[in-house]
Amino acid sequence: MQKTFLLLSAILFFISCDKTATNTIHVSNSSELIDVAKKAKAGDHIIIKNGTYKNIALQFIGEGTEENPINLSAETAGQVFLEGTSSLEISGNYLNVSGLFFRNGYSPKDNVIAFRTGSKKVANNSTVSNCVILDYNSLERDQDNLWVQFYGKHNVLQNCYLAGKTNGGPTVRVDLKGNQSIRNYHKIVNNHFGPRPRKGGARGETIQLGSSFTSMSPSNTLIANNLFEECNGEVEIISSKTNFNIIKNNVFYKSEGSVVTRHGNYVTIDGNYFIGDGINDQFGGIRIINTGHWVTNNLFYKIKGKNFRSPIAIMNGIPKSPLNRYNQVTDVVVAYNTFVDSDSPFQFGVGTNITQAAVLPKSEIRSARPLRTEVVNNVIYNSKGDANPIIEHDKADGVTFKSNIIDNNGVEIKNAHGLITKDLTLTDIGSNIAVPTTGFADVEVYKGFDFEVISNDLLGNSRSKSNQIGAILNVENINLDVLDKTKYGANWFSNEVDKKEATTHKVTNADELITKLKAAESGDIIDLGLGLYQVDTSLIIDKSITIKSSGDGKAQIVFSGMENTPLFELNPYGKLKIEKVILKGNNNNYLFATLKKKMSNHFGLTVNYCEISNFKYALKVYKQSFAERITFEATSITNCENGLELSEETNDRGDYNTEYLTIDGCTFNNVEQNVVDYYRGGYDESTIGGNLLITNSTFMNSGASEENSRLLNHNGIHNVNINNNTFKNNKVEFVSILWGAKNNVESNNTIINSGKIKTEENLVQKLMY
Amino acid sequence: MQKTFLLLSAILFFISCDKTATNTIHVSNSSELIDVAKKAKAGDHIIIKNGTYKNIALQFIGEGTEENPINLSAETAGQVFLEGTSSLEISGNYLNVSGLFFRNGYSPKDNVIAFRTGSKKVANNSTVSNCVILDYNSLERDQDNLWVQFYGKHNVLQNCYLAGKTNGGPTVRVDLKGNQSIRNYHKIVNNHFGPRPRKGGARGETIQLGSSFTSMSPSNTLIANNLFEECNGEVEIISSKTNFNIIKNNVFYKSEGSVVTRHGNYVTIDGNYFIGDGINDQFGGIRIINTGHWVTNNLFYKIKGKNFRSPIAIMNGIPKSPLNRYNQVTDVVVAYNTFVDSDSPFQFGVGTNITQAAVLPKSEIRSARPLRTEVVNNVIYNSKGDANPIIEHDKADGVTFKSNIIDNNGVEIKNAHGLITKDLTLTDIGSNIAVPTTGFADVEVYKGFDFEVISNDLLGNSRSKSNQIGAILNVENINLDVLDKTKYGANWFSNEVDKKEATTHKVTNADELITKLKAAESGDIIDLGLGLYQVDTSLIIDKSITIKSSGDGKAQIVFSGMENTPLFELNPYGKLKIEKVILKGNNNNYLFATLKKKMSNHFGLTVNYCEISNFKYALKVYKQSFAERITFEATSITNCENGLELSEETNDRGDYNTEYLTIDGCTFNNVEQNVVDYYRGGYDESTIGGNLLITNSTFMNSGASEENSRLLNHNGIHNVNINNNTFKNNKVEFVSILWGAKNNVESNNTIINSGKIKTEENLVQKLMY
Repeated sequence: MQKTFLLLSAILFFISCDKTATNTIHVSNSSELIDVAKKAKAGDHIIIKNGTYKNIALQFIGEGTEENPINLSAETAGQVFLEGTSSLEISGNYLNVSGLFFRNGYSPKDNVIAFRTGSKKVANNSTVSNCVILDYNSLERDQDNLWVQFYGKHNVLQNCYLAGKTNGGPTVRVDLKGNQSIRNYHKIVNNHFGPRPRKGGARGETIQLGSSFTSMSPSNTLIANNLFEECNGEVEIISSKTNFNIIKNNVFYKSEGSVVTRHGNYVTIDGNYFIGDGINDQFGGIRIINTGHWVTNNLFYKIKGKNFRSPIAIMNGIPKSPLNRYNQVTDVVVAYNTFVDSDSPFQFGVGTNITQAAVLPKSEIRSARPLRTEVVNNVIYNSKGDANPIIEHDKADGVTFKSNIIDNNGVEIKNAHGLITKDLTLTDIGSNIAVPTTGFADVEVYKGFDFEVISNDLLGNSRSKSNQIGAILNVENINLDVLDKTKYGANWFSNEVDKKEATTHKVTNADELITKLKAAESGDIIDLGLGLYQVDTSLIIDKSITIKSSGDGKAQIVFSGMENTPLFELNPYGKLKIEKVILKGNNNNYLFATLKKKMSNHFGLTVNYCEISNFKYALKVYKQSFAERITFEATSITNCENGLELSEETNDRGDYNTEYLTIDGCTFNNVEQNVVDYYRGGYDESTIGGNLLITNSTFMNSGASEENSRLLNHNGIHNVNINNNTFKNNKVEFVSILWGAKNNVESNNTIINSGKIKTEENLVQKLMY
Repeated sequence: MQKTFLLLSAILFFISCDKTATNTIHVSNSSELIDVAKKAKAGDHIIIKNGTYKNIALQFIGEGTEENPINLSAETAGQVFLEGTSSLEISGNYLNVSGLFFRNGYSPKDNVIAFRTGSKKVANNSTVSNCVILDYNSLERDQDNLWVQFYGKHNVLQNCYLAGKTNGGPTVRVDLKGNQSIRNYHKIVNNHFGPRPRKGGARGETIQLGSSFTSMSPSNTLIANNLFEECNGEVEIISSKTNFNIIKNNVFYKSEGSVVTRHGNYVTIDGNYFIGDGINDQFGGIRIINTGHWVTNNLFYKIKGKNFRSPIAIMNGIPKSPLNRYNQVTDVVVAYNTFVDSDSPFQFGVGTNITQAAVLPKSEIRSARPLRTEVVNNVIYNSKGDANPIIEHDKADGVTFKSNIIDNNGVEIKNAHGLITKDLTLTDIGSNIAVPTTGFADVEVYKGFDFEVISNDLLGNSRSKSNQIGAILNVENINLDVLDKTKYGANWFSNEVDKKEATTHKVTNADELITKLKAAESGDIIDLGLGLYQVDTSLIIDKSITIKSSGDGKAQIVFSGMENTPLFELNPYGKLKIEKVILKGNNNNYLFATLKKKMSNHFGLTVNYCEISNFKYALKVYKQSFAERITFEATSITNCENGLELSEETNDRGDYNTEYLTIDGCTFNNVEQNVVDYYRGGYDESTIGGNLLITNSTFMNSGASEENSRLLNHNGIHNVNINNNTFKNNKVEFVSILWGAKNNVESNNTIINSGKIKTEENLVQKLMY
């Protein structure tokens, strides 16, 4: 029977293919391409000759039909490069694009690929597939745009690879303004969302479905079978802001964020994998706001995110919330999920800020607890017991807990809410993942209203027979390959690169240093022979490079460059590690500085065992520059007008210049002002970042010229740890003012003839929204 | 063909009937009824013996099936009376109730009929039909409840008559709290919503679909083919607060309110009739808030409502509105509507209060104008031209106007927004309605996105061929009977009563007055022979009654009743008209007063040509009492401690004690305090009432003891007109303080040795929400 059916299907398929009137058009240069694409006809197949196409604002317009779509594709997938200021807009019907590679450039428009060519000219039933967009960033971080923007209905993004977005704006957004774009049933499927670096502020989502302004609209967008790998842009990986979306069978792998039902309602989050490493506490799960969401069949594996990033974070809402703030959670179902070695997976009242009523307007106070919410049929396994699997930041009195079990390996549980303790064993299910699938068949499955719709488990097996709690039914021989990257993204592109062996370039004088630094490849090492290097113009750092002195001694670089120019000019992609070098300026120039403009990609800086002196700035980071990490270790900064200055992000929209600023075992002596100045502004719960760690260091005779009379300035940084330092003879009023309500702590510091360390529980911050 | 089909249907019907296992159960008293109803089984048909059932909290519970529903019905429809404190709750499946009459009582519960028996025990697929609920009011106006409350899914209210609700709370509400009640597809069809009197404040809707707290939920409720007659409860007749509702083919007849998309989105309002009288400017149309509504094929006939009540009122929203306030209008379609002799049918920016920024918090300022809204294909006919068919309270710059026409009978149009002028003729379509259906076939029909869904006209004729603008296609011999009441409501009930001839009862002494007043029927007249009537206990007014002196003279009633008791005790239903009588108290008692409690229905008062003196209060209206009209004409009030006192509604939730307080040609002399005290409190746009008219009257030597030193107190009353009066020797600071932003005006008053009349543009009012 089945064979007959297949045969019949094949015959029908060929018959229907015969009907298709394909008209192949080859284009081989930009003007032909632009010309042909904007007047395509049903059945046209436009083939773009392999090669590089620069600065083209391509519009692909035509009225295809289901039987006779219009195709636009690379001669060879991956061999057509769109570079410079190229972009693509699509409008019409049944238009398919495939095989393109956007790289080496940026779109000056609001988007790289848009499913429309004008405010009412949208695309419908159209597909972008097998394409790549890589590092295609605006020149400035604050120059927001989108890489793929959906309009219209029934459009698809599939088997694409998108990675490296550093500027503001979600990588992909579904736009719902206008009736032509609601109930869109768009599909975002089988893509590989590669690393999106930390953005250092809000507006770094990987996918955003609508906005608060269209949060009342039915969207019905499907996000399925995608791999999200290191999507670290901000706290939200997927920000669902509309209704009836489905987020299903995706893999969130080592991604520092959560799937968030930020606005909108009735979203299904079913059968997804959240995979961490058991260490990084930025990898998150699902954060719930609003009404009617169903969170079912998900697996959380070694997720250590806390609070906003906890595996299941149920937020408190603002009573009668403004449109763009936090609605109360109601009518939510969290059922049949499995948690393995994931800390405090159930957190309620997340985001409560009742205690901050003194510094916040009433319209910001999240005091409305979840209502009519069911947390049922879930399984927790902790190989190291967790005393607090359920955390109530505010009371979970509107939540029903039923038929949840835990194997906590003997550790006693506080606040159990009826959790049943079981002895479980793990079953290997492939991809280095082991989960409990047996040992709880006796636990009665809670049957909530409409639970029949949870018809399958995470693996698609039917729950109609021998149903049980947890994400995975007890079936034999599960062998998942969810982390096999070849299953996702463009079939011609892999982000797995062979690790290159670093080349060491020995240099013995300044000219060689300059020449070999230029010639070196990313990852290489410059080995400074001991001696003096007199440098008078800035050294450009635009790749990953290590500069270190030979052997155990320290070479010395003396910089005689012009006033206000840096010895090391940190460019996009410039990641400098410098070790064991004596670095000396002329008191008017800088040691490290970013570009003032066009920092279109991140820099990085690690300074170990160096001796820095006589600079106007040891480090000057300009606005819109961002480093994931800046580290100073075992380094002295002496006789400098300014120390580490990262304080130009004063727009108070939550932005900052580095995710981690680490100072360990360093000495600051006679640094006049901006000893450490690291700024983040704006009341915000969407960025929870900025990390300042100052340990085992000594600060002496510094800060005398600091205007606000604070030695360590870290306004608005969320995580501050000042530990085991000595502060001596610093003419300041405060060594530091810590923000108690956030994660600002100090311990074991010695303060002699310096200002105080004060803790203010609640800081007044400018409202961002 | 059709006949064959009918025959076949009939055969199938009988076959399926044969399958139905009906088990008829007769019940003849309350305890049997209660017992049987709560354990009904599929196929049961419970028949209630005709008679009166008092104080029963009936629960009808059972699991019927589509083939074997459970029926509960009156032996004879309309002959089973539920009285006292009776109520009905239904839960289970396929339960049908019919033929019941709720009267002479009230429900002490939250509702009279509820489609649930417990918080999770709801009814599904159940129907209430052919029932009547009449004047079944709570004893107090503030004791809110509902008459029919929907829960669950697929329930129906059909062919019922509901009228006379005076207490707070919508007559019918659909409740969506909990997933078991969303996507409910309830039907409210073929009902007759009879007169709902003005409530004097908010919470007087006839139908409310959800609440702001569930305004994100999909409801999909259908309200179709109902007659709304004199539904005057408040400014909203239907308050739609959820999504995807359909309001179709209803008739809104002389109803002082509008269909309002108060919260929620994507509501279809199609093919309804809004029929006024060309005079009353309280009869409204459709008021639009929020996103995605389609207002199509509606007919507005002689609708004179203004501003909030205009035929099409598109409101301004609050930017980023709180959940319970006003969202911006976006993506709305207003197409194919016809307006005949309806004033200024298109109004935009309704509710803008930018000018009140000084007295309101920012979160109350409605400044967000409509976006992406289309007003197209509409037809306007004005037999008397209207210079302002389009009013912009705020700019309509987000609105597209296309293919709209007008016959304005020669009157020039300001602000035409492209209105095309045409010469039209009216076609009689029955029900005393004439509309233009021809003369504009040449006007190109605007085709907006998805306009194909507007497939039929108001009468159901297909638009696929010879489409044209306006609500009604040009077809021959239209003969509507939309105002034929027999088409709606219960088949055994009519609200048309034969007008009774009034009986005149002549009385010549106090005893006769007392006796005959008691014996009189509603509508009768008491004719007071001239002379003195010494009365020492209160006369109860609990029906419509006229008391007047014989001939041209004036009888005199002297009331010697106890301190703080009234000569005329105004009870529920008590509507007193008193003419040409001298009324005298003992300075400690009252002339007119309502009950202090249990004013479960409205009173009314008209005083003509009377001489009132020596009362502690001429009129004392207690909290929760309400009269539609209170009128004093050509009457003197002299030597009284208090005049007209209607000021106990100080809850500041928008309530007040009378809709119209009219004082014309009266004299107030030596009235110490509360000369006129008429109070409404609370910042509110849901009640736009309170009407105070003071004309041609004289106020002398009064107000000296008034605490706030105002002669006329009318705090918060929206419509005040003080015209052509004389104020002389009143020891007050202000004669009146008018509220400029509302409709408070004065003219042509003479003020001698009295306080001033001041106008305050913006009054500070307590926020209600």
